[in-house]
Amino acid sequence: MEKLCIIKVGGNILDDPAAQESFLQQFAAVQQRKILVHGGGKIATTVGKQLGIAPNYINGRRITDKDTIDLVTMVYGGLVNKKLVAVLQSLNCNAIGLTGADANILPAIKRPVKEIDYGFVGDIDVEQLAVSSLEVLLNNSMVPVIAALTHDGKGQVLNTNADTIASALATVLSKIYEVRLVYCFEKKGVLENVADENSVINFLDRKKYNALVAEKKLADGILPKIDNAFAAIESGVQEVLIGDANDLLQNMTKNVKGTLIKK
Amino acid sequence: MEKLCIIKVGGNILDDPAAQESFLQQFAAVQQRKILVHGGGKIATTVGKQLGIAPNYINGRRITDKDTIDLVTMVYGGLVNKKLVAVLQSLNCNAIGLTGADANILPAIKRPVKEIDYGFVGDIDVEQLAVSSLEVLLNNSMVPVIAALTHDGKGQVLNTNADTIASALATVLSKIYEVRLVYCFEKKGVLENVADENSVINFLDRKKYNALVAEKKLADGILPKIDNAFAAIESGVQEVLIGDANDLLQNMTKNVKGTLIKK
Repeated sequence: MEKLCIIKVGGNILDDPAAQESFLQQFAAVQQRKILVHGGGKIATTVGKQLGIAPNYINGRRITDKDTIDLVTMVYGGLVNKKLVAVLQSLNCNAIGLTGADANILPAIKRPVKEIDYGFVGDIDVEQLAVSSLEVLLNNSMVPVIAALTHDGKGQVLNTNADTIASALATVLSKIYEVRLVYCFEKKGVLENVADENSVINFLDRKKYNALVAEKKLADGILPKIDNAFAAIESGVQEVLIGDANDLLQNMTKNVKGTLIKK
Repeated sequence: MEKLCIIKVGGNILDDPAAQESFLQQFAAVQQRKILVHGGGKIATTVGKQLGIAPNYINGRRITDKDTIDLVTMVYGGLVNKKLVAVLQSLNCNAIGLTGADANILPAIKRPVKEIDYGFVGDIDVEQLAVSSLEVLLNNSMVPVIAALTHDGKGQVLNTNADTIASALATVLSKIYEVRLVYCFEKKGVLENVADENSVINFLDRKKYNALVAEKKLADGILPKIDNAFAAIESGVQEVLIGDANDLLQNMTKNVKGTLIKK
């Protein structure tokens, strides 16, 4: 099977021009089939403020109301996505910017209303993903750059977590390619001691993870990322790497720093 | 050669929800390879006002300054493009939303500064267009929906007139496909008498056009559209149609109303 690298880049990198430039250079240099998945970082909040769209929370949960889905469609799908594409093109990377509505690559279901109505949030059913269009792009030297948006198939764009999208794509594409899923974020990896930046856990399997969770050693923010990683691993993805872009994207064929998650 | 229909939709249709819905239904029903090219309509001005970005004019010419290119990247490339794509997907049309930066489909040159600095405006050199990526999409049942944005290949998105983009794409794709270029706008066609909505000129060639221009019979606003049409025709495009979407998109194989431009 051909190798495919799916790289999720976090908001902290997108928010920092120097970090973004360095990241894009390293992404462009990856010599494999590859996909970039991104959210929007703080720019959505900044533009939202200018437009008078305040973040809407119920019981501490962020709600995607009508104005907010339009905002993120503009910012993630337009401003951020097209700037990333234009810069990658300048680096000889044949980027093609997409959302999950484009070529129907990420059909989703609007999250059912239970205690909370999350609004225009999409849940992906991995079984429903049809990746033939992505395969066409990948096999014709195009590099999909995917904003964290899905759609309901009835004309509505939906907001979906970028880590979840990366994991779902990795899962379904692992039927066709040998997939390495890479989560780039602001830390060097999963930390055994959140107060110590150098306490990176180099290898994590389910057993070790469960033990760390039981001991409440891990930062809350990292848990969904690791859950997405294990969901991918347990569905056929070869390996997941979590850590700093500089560590993870250089010399991808060699041993890398960061946290490696395998079955 | 396979047939390809390139359809440019105007702002007046995008600004009117009922007209847009009707247009998209008819576009989705066109049974040929097809491409949709769109601008942004009034929504860019509306969002710009909310963001405090005022239209910038020098000597009556609209200037695309830094804030404005970010605005149109958000609005044309994000909000408008992705909503069109999501609705087309709901109509079983496998739309894929792109700008000219995506897959490098529309490289352009930032307009040189002479008397006026137009800012981030892109001029297309038709000779430089590489359409192999578009061909891959078209030949794999995808329907490109292209926002009126180009890029300079150095990381900068540029603003380019949607009529010009449609004409340039028609020209270069006419080497591979039998191309019909369709400009949908708010009139029934090119009018012989601008005060009379029913004075549609059904057929226009260069000779007749030159005569009408000499007599100053045509509305100023239509001239660039017709110039783009002739540029396409004189470079190999089979025919150009100008008129109302309802007239032009129904029964595309039969005789249609509107203005037909041929060599």
